[in-house]
Amino acid sequence: MPGAMHGPMLSPAAPRRAGSLSPPGQSTSLPGWRVSHWFNTPAPFELGHLQGRVVLLHAFQMLCPACVAHGLPQALRVHEAFQGEAVAVIGLHTVFEHHEAMGPKALQAFIHEYCLPFPIGIDQAGGAGPLPLTMAQWGLRGTPSVVLFDRKGRARLHRFGVVDDLVLGAAIGQLLAEGALFALGEPRDHDGIGTARPACDDQGCVSK
Amino acid sequence: MPGAMHGPMLSPAAPRRAGSLSPPGQSTSLPGWRVSHWFNTPAPFELGHLQGRVVLLHAFQMLCPACVAHGLPQALRVHEAFQGEAVAVIGLHTVFEHHEAMGPKALQAFIHEYCLPFPIGIDQAGGAGPLPLTMAQWGLRGTPSVVLFDRKGRARLHRFGVVDDLVLGAAIGQLLAEGALFALGEPRDHDGIGTARPACDDQGCVSK
Amino acid sequence: MPGAMHGPMLSPAAPRRAGSLSPPGQSTSLPGWRVSHWFNTPAPFELGHLQGRVVLLHAFQMLCPACVAHGLPQALRVHEAFQGEAVAVIGLHTVFEHHEAMGPKALQAFIHEYCLPFPIGIDQAGGAGPLPLTMAQWGLRGTPSVVLFDRKGRARLHRFGVVDDLVLGAAIGQLLAEGALFALGEPRDHDGIGTARPACDDQGCVSK
Amino acid sequence: MPGAMHGPMLSPAAPRRAGSLSPPGQSTSLPGWRVSHWFNTPAPFELGHLQGRVVLLHAFQMLCPACVAHGLPQALRVHEAFQGEAVAVIGLHTVFEHHEAMGPKALQAFIHEYCLPFPIGIDQAGGAGPLPLTMAQWGLRGTPSVVLFDRKGRARLHRFGVVDDLVLGAAIGQLLAEGALFALGEPRDHDGIGTARPACDDQGCVSK
Repeated sequence: MPGAMHGPMLSPAAPRRAGSLSPPGQSTSLPGWRVSHWFNTPAPFELGHLQGRVVLLHAFQMLCPACVAHGLPQALRVHEAFQGEAVAVIGLHTVFEHHEAMGPKALQAFIHEYCLPFPIGIDQAGGAGPLPLTMAQWGLRGTPSVVLFDRKGRARLHRFGVVDDLVLGAAIGQLLAEGALFALGEPRDHDGIGTARPACDDQGCVSK
Repeated sequence: MPGAMHGPMLSPAAPRRAGSLSPPGQSTSLPGWRVSHWFNTPAPFELGHLQGRVVLLHAFQMLCPACVAHGLPQALRVHEAFQGEAVAVIGLHTVFEHHEAMGPKALQAFIHEYCLPFPIGIDQAGGAGPLPLTMAQWGLRGTPSVVLFDRKGRARLHRFGVVDDLVLGAAIGQLLAEGALFALGEPRDHDGIGTARPACDDQGCVSK
Repeated sequence: MPGAMHGPMLSPAAPRRAGSLSPPGQSTSLPGWRVSHWFNTPAPFELGHLQGRVVLLHAFQMLCPACVAHGLPQALRVHEAFQGEAVAVIGLHTVFEHHEAMGPKALQAFIHEYCLPFPIGIDQAGGAGPLPLTMAQWGLRGTPSVVLFDRKGRARLHRFGVVDDLVLGAAIGQLLAEGALFALGEPRDHDGIGTARPACDDQGCVSK
Repeated sequence: MPGAMHGPMLSPAAPRRAGSLSPPGQSTSLPGWRVSHWFNTPAPFELGHLQGRVVLLHAFQMLCPACVAHGLPQALRVHEAFQGEAVAVIGLHTVFEHHEAMGPKALQAFIHEYCLPFPIGIDQAGGAGPLPLTMAQWGLRGTPSVVLFDRKGRARLHRFGVVDDLVLGAAIGQLLAEGALFALGEPRDHDGIGTARPACDDQGCVSK
């Protein structure tokens, strides 16, 4: 019954099981997210702005019990535990049901009351069917879902449902380690700004 | 920070501390609740219908983190633990902020997703100011709040914030015990229907 | 698996299911406990010393996972929540296995490390078989077990395993309420010392 | 108060703060552990047997509340989450107080009751003073403590007290990633047995 209060939500989309971290060479190539509105950031966010950082994207719905009880608190823990390191946490509000109850005003109140500090985008409503665009294109099964991108912007982990902190931490650690080695071996950019100090941080992007 | 996600909400109303169970003779006389719409019950609910039962009223807002994390799960536990006994659980949606995000449609989706099984009423919007009518008249400080009525419909406990299960259980136990003794000593009604089988149960009221 | 770490322990004694609070007239008549050594109290404790108070006896073993994870923390919560009221918490160390690992010295270290503040007695070793005397005479199934005595010293609730806080709280509340009414209606003793100020408290008994 | 029940234990040894993962080149060189008796393994365990695997060593005392409530359940979660991967979990019973209550027989009963499945060694009693040998030589501050060794047997993380699952997971993930790259780039041993299939697993070492 407390279980009943915390169940994840399944989308009408086809199921798609996610395994452990895929090797860099076999990473899923995902198109960029499609966001109609951003909160907690002065300018739109693109994955490309975050290169050099590991990105945890948490797809949620504000009326999804497992998101509120497990997914969002975990996203917040990641945000706080790795703030000083090169991990960025992004929320994506992927509404696929009860659309009238989870509009932008409602989400704004929700973000305010739950004190969510990281950037949160609204997945753009799809033309046909209940699924928003990013959710449909990425084949997300429902909420909560976690997508982990490596420092080069490649999707390396897809998970639907509640993920264990140890397992998620290990995946983040592996991607951070790759980045560290990558950092030693390859030139990253030509203008002298390294990945340790990206042009975008959790608060937004600085135009150069 | 997980704390930040679960804080109770304070209303703009004047503070009003609540102590332990008040003696029957000094119980607070509260006017009946004012409800504009009910969920999970076919007919409007009045406290008078519940005489003979102990009533736990849980005042909440669907976007109140402490209500979702603590208050509503506790109300659900009470509902399940004392279902066979003479305890009725009622929810009261006392919206005093973010009104546009917590309307009837949004609440309906929330009740559906969180599988809340007990009757829930919407506290009637007040004419002036953000506080709904019952909340204002009862002097509730914010959400979550618990009001416990004894078998005679007298308010005996008022609590704002998170209440310990042991303490709430003991208050319920005391009121149940009073009822048992009351049951032995006093005639309760003139038509032979005792409190063990009330005219109203959690699913609604039977007209006689 | 966390479950595996917290399982209660079954004694070799015959099973004996416990229900809800029994009516005062049908309470179990239990012989007094048999204790070979007391901790946290300057003088031996008898149930008779506690008349006028509700007594929660928590039977445990220091190497019983469910006692450490659930039973003892609950006993501590009861001790703290009802300290000002007429509830006494007593621990009873009912060792029925691994006797060599749970002797008096080990228990003393355990009580010290876990900061247990209430009186704890060692159930006296039995002559034959692994069960200690009180455990055998009372027919306890294993640890953790809870026995609740009313203000007149009658055992009113027996529970083996993990008990919900709401349910335990309600049982305590019912027994407290009985006492309150009993207090109003009956003379309790002939020397003018009422039950509100018993001769024994959690720290020991005062000889008069 | 639940806090009081779960506090870690400080050893009389000098404090020694631990930071995040140290770089491979600056890892602490620790002498091997000194174990007087092993449980859950048919043969003595040496760090050298585990080369190629990441090793989590959990130093605990069976009567340390924070070990029982946090450290050991976490060690168990690591054991289960990374069982298929190259992570070995080892327990080290570092008794520095209440020696008479935490002898080998008592520990054996504890391991049995808590169903601990991984190899556990008893840190050898020191000649002088209360600290056992390994604890003294490694400068552990108290229990619970975690020491993380990389695939080459170098100590890379030292932590006293409760460690967050995300943070521990990330450290494990980083060490696993190092190993993977190391595996690709360097010859590991001269007898053709790779690290993916070590001569020792959680159940013991096979003599060749």
